[in-house]
Amino acid sequence: MVSFTDSAEATALAERARDLMEDVVLPKERELTGGMAASDRTLKELRAAAKEYGVYAPQIDEAYGGMGYDFRDALPTFEEAGRSLLGAQAMRIAAPDEGNMHLLELHGSELQKDEYLEPLVEAEISSGFSMTEPIQGGGSDPKMLKTTAEKDGDEWVINGHKWWTTNGIGADILLVFARTDREVHPYEGCSVFIVPSDADGVEIVRNIPHIGPDIDRHGHAEIEYNDVRVPEEHLLGTEGAGFKHVQERLGPARLTHCMRYSGMASRALDIAKAYMSEREAFGTTIADKQAPRHAIAQHETELAAARALVREAADEISAGGEARIPVSMAKVFTANATQDAIDTALQFCGGNGIAKDLPIADFYESVRQFRLVDGADEVHLRSIARDAFEDIDSAELDPITRYGQ
Amino acid sequence: MVSFTDSAEATALAERARDLMEDVVLPKERELTGGMAASDRTLKELRAAAKEYGVYAPQIDEAYGGMGYDFRDALPTFEEAGRSLLGAQAMRIAAPDEGNMHLLELHGSELQKDEYLEPLVEAEISSGFSMTEPIQGGGSDPKMLKTTAEKDGDEWVINGHKWWTTNGIGADILLVFARTDREVHPYEGCSVFIVPSDADGVEIVRNIPHIGPDIDRHGHAEIEYNDVRVPEEHLLGTEGAGFKHVQERLGPARLTHCMRYSGMASRALDIAKAYMSEREAFGTTIADKQAPRHAIAQHETELAAARALVREAADEISAGGEARIPVSMAKVFTANATQDAIDTALQFCGGNGIAKDLPIADFYESVRQFRLVDGADEVHLRSIARDAFEDIDSAELDPITRYGQ
Amino acid sequence: MVSFTDSAEATALAERARDLMEDVVLPKERELTGGMAASDRTLKELRAAAKEYGVYAPQIDEAYGGMGYDFRDALPTFEEAGRSLLGAQAMRIAAPDEGNMHLLELHGSELQKDEYLEPLVEAEISSGFSMTEPIQGGGSDPKMLKTTAEKDGDEWVINGHKWWTTNGIGADILLVFARTDREVHPYEGCSVFIVPSDADGVEIVRNIPHIGPDIDRHGHAEIEYNDVRVPEEHLLGTEGAGFKHVQERLGPARLTHCMRYSGMASRALDIAKAYMSEREAFGTTIADKQAPRHAIAQHETELAAARALVREAADEISAGGEARIPVSMAKVFTANATQDAIDTALQFCGGNGIAKDLPIADFYESVRQFRLVDGADEVHLRSIARDAFEDIDSAELDPITRYGQ
Amino acid sequence: MVSFTDSAEATALAERARDLMEDVVLPKERELTGGMAASDRTLKELRAAAKEYGVYAPQIDEAYGGMGYDFRDALPTFEEAGRSLLGAQAMRIAAPDEGNMHLLELHGSELQKDEYLEPLVEAEISSGFSMTEPIQGGGSDPKMLKTTAEKDGDEWVINGHKWWTTNGIGADILLVFARTDREVHPYEGCSVFIVPSDADGVEIVRNIPHIGPDIDRHGHAEIEYNDVRVPEEHLLGTEGAGFKHVQERLGPARLTHCMRYSGMASRALDIAKAYMSEREAFGTTIADKQAPRHAIAQHETELAAARALVREAADEISAGGEARIPVSMAKVFTANATQDAIDTALQFCGGNGIAKDLPIADFYESVRQFRLVDGADEVHLRSIARDAFEDIDSAELDPITRYGQ
Repeated sequence: MVSFTDSAEATALAERARDLMEDVVLPKERELTGGMAASDRTLKELRAAAKEYGVYAPQIDEAYGGMGYDFRDALPTFEEAGRSLLGAQAMRIAAPDEGNMHLLELHGSELQKDEYLEPLVEAEISSGFSMTEPIQGGGSDPKMLKTTAEKDGDEWVINGHKWWTTNGIGADILLVFARTDREVHPYEGCSVFIVPSDADGVEIVRNIPHIGPDIDRHGHAEIEYNDVRVPEEHLLGTEGAGFKHVQERLGPARLTHCMRYSGMASRALDIAKAYMSEREAFGTTIADKQAPRHAIAQHETELAAARALVREAADEISAGGEARIPVSMAKVFTANATQDAIDTALQFCGGNGIAKDLPIADFYESVRQFRLVDGADEVHLRSIARDAFEDIDSAELDPITRYGQ
Repeated sequence: MVSFTDSAEATALAERARDLMEDVVLPKERELTGGMAASDRTLKELRAAAKEYGVYAPQIDEAYGGMGYDFRDALPTFEEAGRSLLGAQAMRIAAPDEGNMHLLELHGSELQKDEYLEPLVEAEISSGFSMTEPIQGGGSDPKMLKTTAEKDGDEWVINGHKWWTTNGIGADILLVFARTDREVHPYEGCSVFIVPSDADGVEIVRNIPHIGPDIDRHGHAEIEYNDVRVPEEHLLGTEGAGFKHVQERLGPARLTHCMRYSGMASRALDIAKAYMSEREAFGTTIADKQAPRHAIAQHETELAAARALVREAADEISAGGEARIPVSMAKVFTANATQDAIDTALQFCGGNGIAKDLPIADFYESVRQFRLVDGADEVHLRSIARDAFEDIDSAELDPITRYGQ
Repeated sequence: MVSFTDSAEATALAERARDLMEDVVLPKERELTGGMAASDRTLKELRAAAKEYGVYAPQIDEAYGGMGYDFRDALPTFEEAGRSLLGAQAMRIAAPDEGNMHLLELHGSELQKDEYLEPLVEAEISSGFSMTEPIQGGGSDPKMLKTTAEKDGDEWVINGHKWWTTNGIGADILLVFARTDREVHPYEGCSVFIVPSDADGVEIVRNIPHIGPDIDRHGHAEIEYNDVRVPEEHLLGTEGAGFKHVQERLGPARLTHCMRYSGMASRALDIAKAYMSEREAFGTTIADKQAPRHAIAQHETELAAARALVREAADEISAGGEARIPVSMAKVFTANATQDAIDTALQFCGGNGIAKDLPIADFYESVRQFRLVDGADEVHLRSIARDAFEDIDSAELDPITRYGQ
Repeated sequence: MVSFTDSAEATALAERARDLMEDVVLPKERELTGGMAASDRTLKELRAAAKEYGVYAPQIDEAYGGMGYDFRDALPTFEEAGRSLLGAQAMRIAAPDEGNMHLLELHGSELQKDEYLEPLVEAEISSGFSMTEPIQGGGSDPKMLKTTAEKDGDEWVINGHKWWTTNGIGADILLVFARTDREVHPYEGCSVFIVPSDADGVEIVRNIPHIGPDIDRHGHAEIEYNDVRVPEEHLLGTEGAGFKHVQERLGPARLTHCMRYSGMASRALDIAKAYMSEREAFGTTIADKQAPRHAIAQHETELAAARALVREAADEISAGGEARIPVSMAKVFTANATQDAIDTALQFCGGNGIAKDLPIADFYESVRQFRLVDGADEVHLRSIARDAFEDIDSAELDPITRYGQ
């Protein structure tokens, strides 16, 4: 699934990732059927293998335990990793730790990097990202954010109610997004804080029951922050620059999400093709029937389109652009293409599609969130439309204005 | 959701069912959030309420504890019941018990009715339907059936490997479909047996892990039948007429499935509309935004079409027809329309769509099987196509044969 | 394509219509290939045949030259007629004459009926319906109507600019929709007038060039009305009741349009099936390939759904209801289902699909307007959505309000 | 619509093309409303302007009157040209002349280049490509080709019946594809001939009436070749290598077609956006309504995906690859994305969408052939599927074979 627009380095890294998947991760995954989660021991073994294969934390600077690949070169590897729910865990590029490490690397103080980044890379600790809030709080529309952090002496006091904090159940530290200045527009008045999960006032209300597997049992937490105090050194990056920091995290993170999910969808099609090649009905294998063949061909085509869009957006980011619209296009297109492909793969496996012996059922549950997180479909379409309607040429209507319209 | 083509009796029954749902079932369901299953005690209370409201087992003859409605008049009530996963349980019209009771009522001996039908109607016992087999056995294509029953004196000896036996974990009796004559075409050589689940040789291999909630924890079982012996009185209906019997069960059962799922989809849209009317983003409620409004309108339209197709097919069955093609059309259309509607409802609830506090997430998981069970989409399309290509009028090509084509 | 919900009379009439089509209309159409229009002589012959077969103007009272069928019983015949662009012409049930005759029959004075209705039924004269206006005038939104009629003595003086007046080029009379009272809401202040096309001030600006065949060369006209004077007896129906009158015309007219187009789509599939059964590619006929077979099956299913929705709406109208939402659902669903089916039929005929030897190419061009006329898709979705959001049950949100959302 | 993967030369050329379109071609097109064709004089003026702007025949070697751009660099310019039906005519890159010139440049003898290529580039003559045959002859499946050429002395004698020869009505020369050796597989036994259209035995049967505008009135011809004799120097390229030659023509030609049509679709959206920004309904402009905005955003996204796929395929061809599957993917995806986008653009222009004052109606008719020519959708899906099913990994089924499936 590499492309002509990937560099030689990127391709070599992705090929090592593919080898790791084929040799180690997929065989392990095939043992863990039935929607079961992986044990800490299994995850540890897989991470060791990833180091051995030379694909561990490729996007992190070598100084902090990674391999120093830039974003664009690491990108194709995320797709390989996505072929199993265990892949990104093995290569230490799973959300939300991957994005949190990225943010710490970009804006962390030396102290913060020592304290948190290196152990995160080593998987000695884990992290959550506490941004979304319950209804009527900040979801798709950031202006609705309610959580606050107020300065009190040399401490920040955080109050708020967050949910969907991925990893929140098992996290050692939580990156909390809060309003620090109510006088200005929220785009100028929010900041990010590093909050130890054992700080006083951090209440993990519950693991929100939800659709989808939880491979490392770290859940999606609902969390209340009641007068939680952190020292001022726990401010991550610049005060008031929270939105800017998060956007830097989100753009590339959306593309890595796209790649992980397109890898998942691609794998789902591969499993379906294997199944269809074995299973017979009405005198031939399903693989010999034209209707499902054409459906597979359509999904392969859409996944190729998704990959091409992601790379176009990544190229623009690599060239220094913000690529806001290309990222939105890549995100909304990929989220739908992958959900559809996995749905079809499930269908063609019949009863084995909804049973959890094969990983397709878990993929089906997992992918459903992708059209909601990282900006729901509707939010991206809104941005794309706003851009599309920016340059209107009224001369286009000349032929009808001649008729008095 | 009643229709002009429903009789007054049908409408009155459905309205009582709607009252039961609003007054009793939905309030109870709203307490049981988080994908939790209902306790036996809760189910018992709900069944008592259904009796009180006059909507308990409406499709069963009064002689056996039901209300004696014919299929066509009971049909609209299935849609009301489908509005919650608890509804059909409350009214004793949930699959597979409902279909099994139907089969026992049609073809059971007096002994079988006494022994099994009445306790089933009273929910004193529960039943499974053991038809589908693992890969390369009988799934969509019945000619591939491998389970056999051989006569040995006054007993039948059953051997085979079944899976996806719904209710199989908790069932007291299993209706097993097996080949009784290998010399003839399977359509002529299969029979149905009543097998107590505690008979020697019945091995419940496991509850197949799968997508979807299990409201009564009775699962989908993989079962091996190893030299299972049942007395000859356990043959249900006529020897060799198994396919015919099952078809009689399946046609109407497909329509009742359609109605239950269209009720589920309708409810999902209702919840989404309530959510959209509360939730604000970018300055207005979501209910005030045109794109999701139009999407809701499209799904309402498709569900109306599904209901109309189901009723057309049911009218034909009521008039004595087999309605094979109308049933296939109703089934394949409804299965897709309901999956799509629930998917959209989930999307418009944002994070609350994938969280299991609202029932939409359970609906999303539940509906996915509907395009596979009761004949996969592809099997119905195959039948419809065969019928569509039956009468070809080659005169249609006259205008091009004139040009030598 | 008759249904269990059609009466015996309706079915007998539709069967006669089917015979007329098979015996007379289709053979004639097959001579007129190449997108050619029919001559007046041909149309006259076809109308004579329709009388002979007992299917001429079935919906018009016998007193005015028709057969006296009520709307619901005539409905299935419109579908048979739609199987060729010549069918509705032959049976005198083509738009806009059919709707205009309906309006005259409902609200015409005796004088108007003598003068116009009877000659219209006999096809001695033809009529246009002048409602839509150019951009920024009255289109989908009736509140934007600009054409006015002012009383001056015993005459009305009409001024306005209309377009898309179907039949406008060849019409003898034009039914013109105009505002007669600016002080009240347009729903209360519009009226309909009968305007002879040769009245002073009626200027047929042009036949608007457009997609689609023009079987009788009567076009879609852009017309200016400049101080056009008609005597007060030319007011059709009640002053100020124009909207009400037009709605009476539109509801059933939308359903007859649906039936004509579903007949057209059905015919397109029939032609495609004949072609696919002859044409070979890659070793088999196309009819033997599964992907196009399944596509045909899906379209047959959608057309069955369209027919069922139309009948549900018609039943409600027959029972005295307004059926506004069922009509909107039937219209928007049928318009999309027929466009899609014809598009697929075209595709499976390959080059012969876009060539005009077969009628599919004309059907393809003709059907495209259906998602725009009689209320664009968006207008119907708007109505359906408004209805869908009317009863919101906030109790549905109980499970999440418990969590403080 | 340029991309990061285009070279600086490619981008500069495309920008000049965009200027030509904005300054000259679109203003001219806006005068030619009503589906009218362009006069020879108009086309001549446009070609003169294209030379002036430095975008005339960019893909042809300077030696023959072009500009010497390689395929990959010329590619983005085809998209600009596609924004009007006149664009490719102006820049001399319209099908089929463009592909024919490409073939002559690749395989023509010096004599053939002198005689035909240079006048073609100068638009002094025009050419057709005679490949497709009527039903049961060679269409999607080349093995069914029936036209033959037999050597008789130093002449070739051609016999056959062709149709859909684009440009066939006005062409001076016809490139005819014929079987020259019946003993071998058709992939080895066909050749291409240059046939003057005034040769004895060339009978232009008719201009096939069809969907779609005919901007230069050169039509799609049905042609019979009856004992047509051409001297042996009229063989184009190598005897028996016809398929190979045509494939070389087709791969890149498919991509240039994709670009022209994506330009057309993009323009259609631009016109729709201008219209929506003017037109009001129900209190706001259509551009302010969310449902059509989101639809526009979705089509913009799909067109971006189409462009990205085309460039991926072109990059592979530039790098020396055959890119068979990427070309198939780009073709089938683009054909559907452009048809859908134009359909939506038409819808949002209401009555002005089907009227031929704006060019959208012509675009709507024009684009419909694209899913059929250059390989029908079904042919490309067939190739993609064959490739997709090539590497099946049966280890994927390990988790279910453990359960005896």
